[in-house]
Amino acid sequence: MRAIRYYGPGDVRLDEIPEPPVKAQQVKIKVAWNGICGSDLHSYSSLLPVSPTLTKPHVVTNETLPVVMGHEMSGTIVAVGSGVNISRLRVGQNVVVEPLLSCRKPSCPCCRDGTRNVCPHTTFIGIGGCGGGLAEYISVDEDRVHALPDGIPLDVGALMEPLAVVWHAVKRSNMQAGDKVLILGAGPIGLLASRVVRVFRASWVAVSEPALKRRELATLHGADVVYDPTSPGADVPAAVRQATGDRGADVVLDCAGNQRTLDTAFHAVRPRGSVVNVAVWENKPVLDIDAVTYKEVRFTGVLAYDRVHAEMLEAVAAGKFSGLENLITRRIALEDFVEKGIKALINEKDEHVKILVRPDPWSPSRL
Amino acid sequence: MRAIRYYGPGDVRLDEIPEPPVKAQQVKIKVAWNGICGSDLHSYSSLLPVSPTLTKPHVVTNETLPVVMGHEMSGTIVAVGSGVNISRLRVGQNVVVEPLLSCRKPSCPCCRDGTRNVCPHTTFIGIGGCGGGLAEYISVDEDRVHALPDGIPLDVGALMEPLAVVWHAVKRSNMQAGDKVLILGAGPIGLLASRVVRVFRASWVAVSEPALKRRELATLHGADVVYDPTSPGADVPAAVRQATGDRGADVVLDCAGNQRTLDTAFHAVRPRGSVVNVAVWENKPVLDIDAVTYKEVRFTGVLAYDRVHAEMLEAVAAGKFSGLENLITRRIALEDFVEKGIKALINEKDEHVKILVRPDPWSPSRL
Repeated sequence: MRAIRYYGPGDVRLDEIPEPPVKAQQVKIKVAWNGICGSDLHSYSSLLPVSPTLTKPHVVTNETLPVVMGHEMSGTIVAVGSGVNISRLRVGQNVVVEPLLSCRKPSCPCCRDGTRNVCPHTTFIGIGGCGGGLAEYISVDEDRVHALPDGIPLDVGALMEPLAVVWHAVKRSNMQAGDKVLILGAGPIGLLASRVVRVFRASWVAVSEPALKRRELATLHGADVVYDPTSPGADVPAAVRQATGDRGADVVLDCAGNQRTLDTAFHAVRPRGSVVNVAVWENKPVLDIDAVTYKEVRFTGVLAYDRVHAEMLEAVAAGKFSGLENLITRRIALEDFVEKGIKALINEKDEHVKILVRPDPWSPSRL
Repeated sequence: MRAIRYYGPGDVRLDEIPEPPVKAQQVKIKVAWNGICGSDLHSYSSLLPVSPTLTKPHVVTNETLPVVMGHEMSGTIVAVGSGVNISRLRVGQNVVVEPLLSCRKPSCPCCRDGTRNVCPHTTFIGIGGCGGGLAEYISVDEDRVHALPDGIPLDVGALMEPLAVVWHAVKRSNMQAGDKVLILGAGPIGLLASRVVRVFRASWVAVSEPALKRRELATLHGADVVYDPTSPGADVPAAVRQATGDRGADVVLDCAGNQRTLDTAFHAVRPRGSVVNVAVWENKPVLDIDAVTYKEVRFTGVLAYDRVHAEMLEAVAAGKFSGLENLITRRIALEDFVEKGIKALINEKDEHVKILVRPDPWSPSRL
């Protein structure tokens, strides 16, 4: 089968590899769509901390590079291994994959207590090994597979993984119903965040984003107000304070991850408010420690998710996330992954939100 | 009466000023002892954000510089204004002052909901105006005055204000009974923190501190283990992980406030652990954002206290803080405040922990 494999920064190849066998407690999935994630862009420029190398295998997967890429996938089950609960997962079922992997040792407190995402050995399908969504087929342990609710198309299914990231981040933010929320950055994560905080009953949602196209999408996806932080004289913290009775936002989600957004977060949050970093960073920022101290801000890091898919997919099944299709700004074939996927997201940021890749032999012109 | 007044950075004078009148709902206190705080050192080098200036009055106190300094004070009531609850506060009663001031407007959410310390206009007696502990007498609103428990000497009473800072910080850290705690820096705040986490039933307390004298005091004040982070080959995060079953500390309190301690905090804390900044900083640090993200660390700022004195003084009355006298490493007269107080704390850090000032005409040689 065809697969995009990662050999290291800047070295990504379309390879022909054998189809994966389906082992006990696994299902084999024909991948429908795989979304390109910000972390894929990061790995294209430098090795992610959760990646193996060409010579050093990852402790969880025991695999070295190259590995198949892609961790935001949807697809259809084509084979079921022995021991799988077929009342839940059967051939023909549309599914999404929860790609988080961890050591699962009985001695690991994280894997034991429901915080697998912060296991010191955490990695992901599509980054650390165990196949990936940028291939025609993948076999996945059944506990990492969730049924896609009826009526949700497979392309939207590919957004469930980033939606889980955001769902987890909002839970960790300690956001309460009625809270006023500021979201910094309206890429896929920021736009999904705007939807999730609405589901968690935010009373006011503001989104700050330089790109016009993304601000327009934010308005469609839950934002009461959008700010362009690059417009002349823009002062997002002042605007937020004015809109919140001189108080500040209860919760700020940094979905961009740069010095400017982090500073804005600490200046726009209310006293004793919550700032959550949902971004992956290129550089270490300077911390405005006085802003943290004098307002007693709580700053929380989040990574992926653990045990959120069930409740999130229930909300999706209940129709709370209708209209996500318009976050998909391009659909490409596997062979175009680097040129029309990675490079487009790096060089044409203002044009794209989520780019989906279709791994089976397929031409976008056939759509 | 004699008073130390602050005119601005580097300009601190011993002045003769009138004794303060005692107004309704106030008590007049003869100050016994006033401790020198880290923030006094900071104000000696640069203006604190909560200070007025020579021309701009503070919005809460309506006072401009100069103001009387000193906010860590104990003393004895010498007069009681009309309307004071004399079953609680009477002439002859030994007391401590809770110096936090805020706007107290009915429209201020912070002043209304019990978070006066993060009111945007918070300041302190001895920094923002309303007198200070570096004077022979001070008149204070009765709600800012607490009875010193019987049997607690007045010099130890001067430590109650920093003890309240620490008590509040530990509560904000979300420390649980049985937690393993790392304290960075064993100045007065770090040493008091070691005591407070013991009262909150920490199961293991480690203190990292470069100065030998302070490490010795830490051992006397609750530390199970002390680290010298400056010794050759020292690796405090590795030592903490080794001592905690490769897990990391549940809670890290940064009571030093420099790049090295902040980095140590994020590397020594366990996944989903809590890091609290209890320090006042000179510079903005670089934030190791990946350490925060990959372990989902919660980083919390704290400032002073609100509504902790009653429960803290109850613990003091119950004998849970015996032996604090040995944190007092020098007692000086008012006229020696700068030379033997401020400058000693700046230049002879390894010799001193807490220096107390006695405002009445007095010679240390008479002790």
